[in-house]
Amino acid sequence: MSGQPNVRYGMVGGGQGAFIGYVHRLAAQLDGKIELVCGAFSRDSDNCRQTGAELGLDPARCYIDFHEMMKAEAALPESERMQFVAIVTPNHVHYPVARAALEAGFHVLSDKPATLNLEEMQSLSQIIYDSGLAYGLTHTYLGYPLVSVAKEIVASGGIGKVRKVYAEYIQGWLATEVENKQAEWRTDPARSGASGCMGDIGTHAHNLAEYVTGKRMTHVAADLTVFVDGRRLDDDGSALFRMEDGVKGTLSASQICVGKENSLSLRVYGETGGLEWNQEEPNSLIRTYADRPTEIIRAGQGYLPESVQSHFRTPPGHPEGYIEAFANIYLEFAEVIKTNGGVKAGSTAALRGMAFIEALVESSNSNSAWTEIKT
Amino acid sequence: MSGQPNVRYGMVGGGQGAFIGYVHRLAAQLDGKIELVCGAFSRDSDNCRQTGAELGLDPARCYIDFHEMMKAEAALPESERMQFVAIVTPNHVHYPVARAALEAGFHVLSDKPATLNLEEMQSLSQIIYDSGLAYGLTHTYLGYPLVSVAKEIVASGGIGKVRKVYAEYIQGWLATEVENKQAEWRTDPARSGASGCMGDIGTHAHNLAEYVTGKRMTHVAADLTVFVDGRRLDDDGSALFRMEDGVKGTLSASQICVGKENSLSLRVYGETGGLEWNQEEPNSLIRTYADRPTEIIRAGQGYLPESVQSHFRTPPGHPEGYIEAFANIYLEFAEVIKTNGGVKAGSTAALRGMAFIEALVESSNSNSAWTEIKT
Amino acid sequence: MSGQPNVRYGMVGGGQGAFIGYVHRLAAQLDGKIELVCGAFSRDSDNCRQTGAELGLDPARCYIDFHEMMKAEAALPESERMQFVAIVTPNHVHYPVARAALEAGFHVLSDKPATLNLEEMQSLSQIIYDSGLAYGLTHTYLGYPLVSVAKEIVASGGIGKVRKVYAEYIQGWLATEVENKQAEWRTDPARSGASGCMGDIGTHAHNLAEYVTGKRMTHVAADLTVFVDGRRLDDDGSALFRMEDGVKGTLSASQICVGKENSLSLRVYGETGGLEWNQEEPNSLIRTYADRPTEIIRAGQGYLPESVQSHFRTPPGHPEGYIEAFANIYLEFAEVIKTNGGVKAGSTAALRGMAFIEALVESSNSNSAWTEIKT
Amino acid sequence: MSGQPNVRYGMVGGGQGAFIGYVHRLAAQLDGKIELVCGAFSRDSDNCRQTGAELGLDPARCYIDFHEMMKAEAALPESERMQFVAIVTPNHVHYPVARAALEAGFHVLSDKPATLNLEEMQSLSQIIYDSGLAYGLTHTYLGYPLVSVAKEIVASGGIGKVRKVYAEYIQGWLATEVENKQAEWRTDPARSGASGCMGDIGTHAHNLAEYVTGKRMTHVAADLTVFVDGRRLDDDGSALFRMEDGVKGTLSASQICVGKENSLSLRVYGETGGLEWNQEEPNSLIRTYADRPTEIIRAGQGYLPESVQSHFRTPPGHPEGYIEAFANIYLEFAEVIKTNGGVKAGSTAALRGMAFIEALVESSNSNSAWTEIKT
Repeated sequence: MSGQPNVRYGMVGGGQGAFIGYVHRLAAQLDGKIELVCGAFSRDSDNCRQTGAELGLDPARCYIDFHEMMKAEAALPESERMQFVAIVTPNHVHYPVARAALEAGFHVLSDKPATLNLEEMQSLSQIIYDSGLAYGLTHTYLGYPLVSVAKEIVASGGIGKVRKVYAEYIQGWLATEVENKQAEWRTDPARSGASGCMGDIGTHAHNLAEYVTGKRMTHVAADLTVFVDGRRLDDDGSALFRMEDGVKGTLSASQICVGKENSLSLRVYGETGGLEWNQEEPNSLIRTYADRPTEIIRAGQGYLPESVQSHFRTPPGHPEGYIEAFANIYLEFAEVIKTNGGVKAGSTAALRGMAFIEALVESSNSNSAWTEIKT
Repeated sequence: MSGQPNVRYGMVGGGQGAFIGYVHRLAAQLDGKIELVCGAFSRDSDNCRQTGAELGLDPARCYIDFHEMMKAEAALPESERMQFVAIVTPNHVHYPVARAALEAGFHVLSDKPATLNLEEMQSLSQIIYDSGLAYGLTHTYLGYPLVSVAKEIVASGGIGKVRKVYAEYIQGWLATEVENKQAEWRTDPARSGASGCMGDIGTHAHNLAEYVTGKRMTHVAADLTVFVDGRRLDDDGSALFRMEDGVKGTLSASQICVGKENSLSLRVYGETGGLEWNQEEPNSLIRTYADRPTEIIRAGQGYLPESVQSHFRTPPGHPEGYIEAFANIYLEFAEVIKTNGGVKAGSTAALRGMAFIEALVESSNSNSAWTEIKT
Repeated sequence: MSGQPNVRYGMVGGGQGAFIGYVHRLAAQLDGKIELVCGAFSRDSDNCRQTGAELGLDPARCYIDFHEMMKAEAALPESERMQFVAIVTPNHVHYPVARAALEAGFHVLSDKPATLNLEEMQSLSQIIYDSGLAYGLTHTYLGYPLVSVAKEIVASGGIGKVRKVYAEYIQGWLATEVENKQAEWRTDPARSGASGCMGDIGTHAHNLAEYVTGKRMTHVAADLTVFVDGRRLDDDGSALFRMEDGVKGTLSASQICVGKENSLSLRVYGETGGLEWNQEEPNSLIRTYADRPTEIIRAGQGYLPESVQSHFRTPPGHPEGYIEAFANIYLEFAEVIKTNGGVKAGSTAALRGMAFIEALVESSNSNSAWTEIKT
Repeated sequence: MSGQPNVRYGMVGGGQGAFIGYVHRLAAQLDGKIELVCGAFSRDSDNCRQTGAELGLDPARCYIDFHEMMKAEAALPESERMQFVAIVTPNHVHYPVARAALEAGFHVLSDKPATLNLEEMQSLSQIIYDSGLAYGLTHTYLGYPLVSVAKEIVASGGIGKVRKVYAEYIQGWLATEVENKQAEWRTDPARSGASGCMGDIGTHAHNLAEYVTGKRMTHVAADLTVFVDGRRLDDDGSALFRMEDGVKGTLSASQICVGKENSLSLRVYGETGGLEWNQEEPNSLIRTYADRPTEIIRAGQGYLPESVQSHFRTPPGHPEGYIEAFANIYLEFAEVIKTNGGVKAGSTAALRGMAFIEALVESSNSNSAWTEIKT
C-alpha cells in the first residue's frame, strides 16, 4: 500500500475474534504511515496463520510464539524487520511480551493496563529504562485533539488554579452475565489483574484526569462492587480522590449502567473557569466562565492552538472519532521512534495507572480508607 | 384576586432583598388557589410594613414578630385567619417559627433544611406528631412532574432492581467571595448549620435520590471542602454512599464549579434499565434500556401516567419550569390541608435530611470514614 | 390576593374547556399585579357562571354577552371597572370584541391572529388609532427575555448586516384527524380565517423573525398543504421569503410533523455572526462567530443587558418557561397602560401578521408566485 | 501494506494542496482492502511526482496526464493494473476523466457533482451504459450507517406514508471572500458548473432526501443568492420542493451561515412517525412517534438491522465519523466491482443530481417558478 518510508510493526495478540487488535490495526494503517509486517496473533496456529493471511502478511512472518517472533525479526535486516511491537493480548500477557520485545531491542506500544499488577510494572520500568527504547501505552482517549486543547488551557492558566475534578467512565455491557471473548478474560483475575471494571476503564478516567490537569492523583477512598452474581472482579466502582495542590474529585467507573455505551467524561473546575468533555461527543469541548457565556470549542477550528492543528484530518464539522484518536496515538508513537525521542511519558503513565489500580483495590478492601497512590 | 375558596397562608421571612420568599409567593399564587393573608416578613419594621404594602396586605396583618403573628392570627375567625405558615427565613430560625406555628395550631410549610441540626428536628418531629398538623418541606425539585414519573417507573419495576445512583448538585456562584444577603447567612454556621454547600443543596440531591429510588440512604463516606479562603462552611463536597438493598452511589454538591448554574441531576441504573434527569432541562426524562433505543420521555405527554397529568398546566413543548414545580409543591400541600390529609412525608423527609447532613459532617471530620445516617 | 395597586382586566372567551383562556389567566396572575375582575367567558350561561365562580369572581360581573360587559363595566366607578379586555375567543370573534372594547373606552390585549382577515384588521387599526387606547397582541414568544437579547444583539450590530433567516414552527398534534375543541375551530375557515396552520402558528414564526431582525418581510412564495383528508384549512406550509435590505429566508410551519411538540425556532445569520433560539429550550441563546467558539448565552445571567434583567424572576439555572414568558407580555402591557404609553407596537404587528397570512394564501393559490406583503 | 487480495485503484486529481483527494485516500485505505497503485495527481509534474512519492507509489505510475494513465495502466497485466479510477478533480474535469476511464475499461468512482452540467451527464450515462462498467458517486453521507437505517425504517413503513421533508446543508466558511484553492474553483462557473453552493452541497441534501425517502423529487421553486460581493456563483439558496406521491418539503443550502461548520441534516415526517439525523452527530438517529417517547437510535447497537451491522467497526459509544462513512462508500464500491455487480445506483443518482442543479438554477432565474426536475 501507499505510504512514505513507513514505520514497521509487529503485533502480539489480535487473532480472529479479538476486537482490540482489529482496532489497533485500523488505527495504525489509517494514515498510511505505519505498516504491519508480522504478528504472533494467536497461539492457535490456524488462527494465527489465517489472521496473517487475511492481513496479507508473509506467512513466514506469522509466528505462533512471540519469543520466536522477537528472535526471527531481530535476525532480519534492519530495513525489513519490525521496529516496534504492538501488544494487544489479555492483560496478563502484557508484561512477558513487553519484556521480551524490549530485550530483543524492539520498541513497545502496549494496550492498557500495562501489566497485571504494580510489581510487574515496576520491574518493567527498569527494563524500559535500561533498554533506552520507547514504551508507549495506548490510552486511546488522549488521542482526541480536544483533550490536548483542554490540557493546554489548564496549563496556561485558562481556568485558574484547579480545584475540583469529576472523572467518569460508565458503560452498560456487563449489566448481566455476558459470555463472549471480550467479557471472559476481563472478569478473570488471573488474566485481568486485581480489578475488572476499574482496571479496564477506570484507568482511562484516571489517566485523563491526570493528563488534563497536569496533577498527580495522590489518594483514593474507593468502593468497588460486584453487582452481577458470580462475577469475580468489580463491575462497578466509585472513589473520592485527592490530587496534588489541594485538588479534589470523584472518579466513577461502571459496566453495569444499563444503556450507557462508552461514556468517558471529564469535568475540571478551577478558580476562574471550567472545562467539560465527553468521549461520545469528542469534537466539542465545553468551556465555562464566571462572567461570560459558556463556549463550545470545536474540533478542527482555526482558533485552536497551532500545536493541535496537525491532529485533525478534516475541516470542522466532519466528525473524527475513536479510530482517528487511536491513529493519533500510533502516529505520535511512530514519531517518537523516528526522532529517537526516547521513552516519552508512556512508562510513567503506565506506572501511575498500575499504582492507581492497586490503591483502589486496597482502599476498597479497607472499608474505603484513604489510600496513597504510590509510584 | 381570582380563585376558588382559597387556602390562606402567612409568611415568616421574605422581606425585601430576600430571594426565596419572593419565589415562594410566586409559587403560591401561580394557580390562584392559595392566598397570602399576613406576614412577619422582617424584624425591621419598615421592611416588614413595606413588603406587606407591596403585596397588598392589610397593614394590621403585617407583624414584626412571628410570635405576635401566631397569636393575632389565632384570634381571628377561622374563616379569615391563615391556615398555614410558610417559613422562608435563614435556617436557624426555621425551628422556632415552626414550633410556634404548630403550637398555635397552624400547619407549616418550611424551606429546607428543616432545622439547624438533627437534634432540633427530632424535637420538632415530636411536636409535629403531637400537633396532628401538616408539616411540609419545600423540596422544590420534587415538584417537577417528571421526577414523579421517574419514581413511578422505578417503583413499578421499570428499571429492575436498583443498583447504582449518581446524584449531583453543582453551582458556581460561590466560586469567589460573594457579598450579598443570600451568600452571607449561608456561610455562617450559626445561621446555616453545620454544613454550607451540603446543607443548602446537597440535601436536595439526597432527597431526590431517596424519593426516586424509594430507598433510604444508610451510610456515607464524605469529603467536604472549603475552597474559598476565609469561608467558614464547606462550599464543596463529595460522598460515596450506600442505600438499602445493596444500592450504591455517589453524591456531589458544589458551589465553586465556575459557570455552572443550578445543575441538579440524578441518574439511576437498575438491573434492566436506567433513568436520567437534570433540573436545568426538567421537561425531559431519559430512559435507557439494555436492548432498545434510549427514550426521551417528555413533560405534558398523553403517554405519561394518569397520576401526573394534573401536574402540567400546558401542552407538551410549552416548557414549565422552576416556578411551576414550586407551585406544585404548594398545591399539593394545600390539598393535604384541605383533605385533612395529615402529616404527609414532610416530617420524615425533614428528619432524614438533617440526619444526612449530620452524617456527612461527621464522616468528613473522621477522615471520610463510613458513617451511618441515623433516623 | 396580594399585589400593589393592580391593573384590572376582563376576559372575553376562556370558558370551561378553553385552553388558551386558562393560560392567559395564569400568566396575568403570576406576578400578582394584574387582576381579573370580570368576564364574558362563554355564551353558554352555565359555563360562563361556573367559570366565574371557579375564579372567585363576583357573579354580577360574569356576563353572557360581551357587549353587555362593555356597557356594565363602563358604568362602574373608574377605580373598580376593568381597565383592559383580554380577548381569548376563536379568531372570528377577535374583531367584534376588540372593536366593542375600544369603543367603550377599554384597552385591548388580544390573542392572535388579531382578526379574521386583513380587511378587518385595517378597520381595527383605524379604530385603535382613533381611540388613543392601547392595543396589544399576545405574541407570547416575544415574552421570552432571550428573544429580546437576540433583538438587541442584532440591533447593535452584533452579527453584522443580516443576510439569512430560518424561521420554523412545527408541531405534530394535527397529524391525524383530531376531535376536540382546540382543533375544531382552528380548522374551520369561518372561525379561523383563510389559513389554519399558518394563521395559528406560522404567524408566530413571522412575528419572531421580524422582531429579532428588525426587518420587514416584504415578499413570500408559499406552498400551503392540507395533508389530512377532509380538513378544510392548511395543516402545513413552507415559504421562501424576502425582507428589506436583501435579507432572505425560509419559513415553515406544520402541524403534521408527528412527535414534534411546539418547536418554534429562529436562526439568523449576518455578515459576522449568527443567533439560534428554540422555544422548547428557551433559556439558551446560541451565538455563533466566524473565528471564535460558539457561545451559549443563558437566561438570568449577569452578563445580559440591563434592559432584560427585570424580565427574569429567578437566578440562572432555574428554568423559566412559557407561562413566565406569557406573564412578561401581560406585565409589559400593564406597564403600557399605567404609563399611558399608548398603542405600542401591537397594532402594527397585528396588521403585519394579517397581511402576512393574506400574502401566503394568495401566493399558495397562485402556484407559489412571489407575493407582496402589503401593509 | 496488509490486506486480502486488494482492489486496486488510480486517482486523478488530489495533488498537494487538494483536500478532497487526501480524504479519498484516507477512506480508501482505512480498512486495508483497497490499494492505490497509480495516479495523475496534478498536471504540474513536480506536484504529481512528489505526491506519488509521498504515497510510496512507483514513480513510473505517476502520470502527468490522465489519458496517459488510462493507456499505460491498460497495458499492464490484469493482475497489476488499476481496477477503478477515483476522480477528485474540480468539477469540470469529472466528465473527461470519467469518459476516458470508462472507454479504457476502468470502473469509475467520481466525486460529485458528477459532471459540469446535465448534458454532460446524459452523455456520460450512455457511455456508462455501453461500457457495462461500474460507476459510483461519492455521496459520502450515504456512507453513515444510520442513514441506511433511516432508509430501512421508511421503506418498511416505520413512519407511515411520507408527507414532509426538511433537508438542509449549511456552512459558514464562504461568509466572506475566501482565497484558497478549495474556494477558488468552487466559485468559478467554468470549473464548478452553473451553481456554487447548491452544486457543491445542496446536491448532498437532495441526494440524502431521495435516498432516505425512496421518493424522487419532481419539482423545485428555488431562490439562489450571491451574498458576497464579487462572487460569481450562489453561496446560498433555498427551495420549496415536491416529490412523488404528494411529499412536500424545503431544501436549504448555504455557505454564508457564519459559525456553522458542516451541518447537513434531514428530517422526514410520515403519517405515523418521523426521523431526524444530522451529519455532525452522525451516530444518533432520532425517531419520533405520535404516542410514544422519542427514541435515540444509536450506531453500533445490536438492535439495528442485520444489514448494517457490518458497516460499523467499533462498539456503540466509540464514535465513527466522516472518514469511516467515506470508507464505507469505498468498500461498497469495491464490493460492486468484485462481485461484478454492475452499475449500482451511481449513474442514476448522478443524473438526478445534475438535473436537480439544472432545475434549481432555472427556477431561480425564472423568479422561483416551479420547475420540473427532468431525468
